[in-house]
Amino acid sequence: MAAVATREQIVAAADRLFYHGGYEHTSFADIAGAVGLSRGNFYYHFKSKDAILDAVIDARLADTRRMLEQWEAEAPTPAGRIMRYVEIVLTNRADIQDYGCPVGTLTTELAKLEHAMLGQAGRLFTLFRTWLREQFVLLEHAEQADELAMHVLAFSQGVAVMANAFHDEAFIQREVDRMREWLHTYER
Amino acid sequence: MAAVATREQIVAAADRLFYHGGYEHTSFADIAGAVGLSRGNFYYHFKSKDAILDAVIDARLADTRRMLEQWEAEAPTPAGRIMRYVEIVLTNRADIQDYGCPVGTLTTELAKLEHAMLGQAGRLFTLFRTWLREQFVLLEHAEQADELAMHVLAFSQGVAVMANAFHDEAFIQREVDRMREWLHTYER
Repeated sequence: MAAVATREQIVAAADRLFYHGGYEHTSFADIAGAVGLSRGNFYYHFKSKDAILDAVIDARLADTRRMLEQWEAEAPTPAGRIMRYVEIVLTNRADIQDYGCPVGTLTTELAKLEHAMLGQAGRLFTLFRTWLREQFVLLEHAEQADELAMHVLAFSQGVAVMANAFHDEAFIQREVDRMREWLHTYER
Repeated sequence: MAAVATREQIVAAADRLFYHGGYEHTSFADIAGAVGLSRGNFYYHFKSKDAILDAVIDARLADTRRMLEQWEAEAPTPAGRIMRYVEIVLTNRADIQDYGCPVGTLTTELAKLEHAMLGQAGRLFTLFRTWLREQFVLLEHAEQADELAMHVLAFSQGVAVMANAFHDEAFIQREVDRMREWLHTYER
């Protein structure tokens, strides 16, 4: 149990450090330091930074699945659920302005590094894409569902990059309002 | 003259390496190696990677100004000029799918590094923002011009992140078509 708790602490610290400072910029020693572990103890849990990244992605996938289930429980309509996704950029606006989107910035960095884990990180986008697509199918736009899901994902990424570059909350709010109007045109 | 040419070669090589592999990932030695210079000769031109980044941003600003002037010369209407910007994601789709947007990915990375040059890199976005705003003023949407400019910038960034993550050209084309339709609603 103690070993599991330590492993979870390492993954949580690595997740935060990768998000805040970037994957390449974060060293093995940074992560060990953040959880106050000796190099030997740390090494017992993870042998490489890649292995930690793999665990971070798995943890994010699990967290995302829980969040999507919660949205489904809380929002009765598919449009309401899509809006929960759209509003992430407002809900997480402080972090987004400081560090961008955790998914988008990770895939962007791994693509440049031609990193073997890029496909793995892409599963995070695919999870959102699949879920958004399901909501558009429920809205009776089955034929366009995947295209509409990609449009919503592109919205969130565009807003995140610009909010990070300009630190402009009013911009985020305007773009969310614009998406809400756009979504209304797809509601029955 | 030889010194100027060498300096320009260094800046061009660094620009490409920063874009393809990321700023942090690119070393002084990588850049010197790409232009085939000894460390001593290289050091004569640039004392630090930050100084190279500064020169890369200056070169990109100059290139962007030239490109904007060309668009103004080639496209007679403000809407046509805005479409030239929108279509960058198609024109540069190969690079964008491999490396994302050169401006967006640089500011994203520098923000995470809390890099002193972040404000300098932000001038690239501001140059596009100011130019797009001017086009919307010419379209007689002066009051909303800056908001519309930010919306167009967010479009390009969202498409770039998703195209980079999914390598999907049909997606890029669809989003450009969507923007063209959106822009028509603002034409007189």
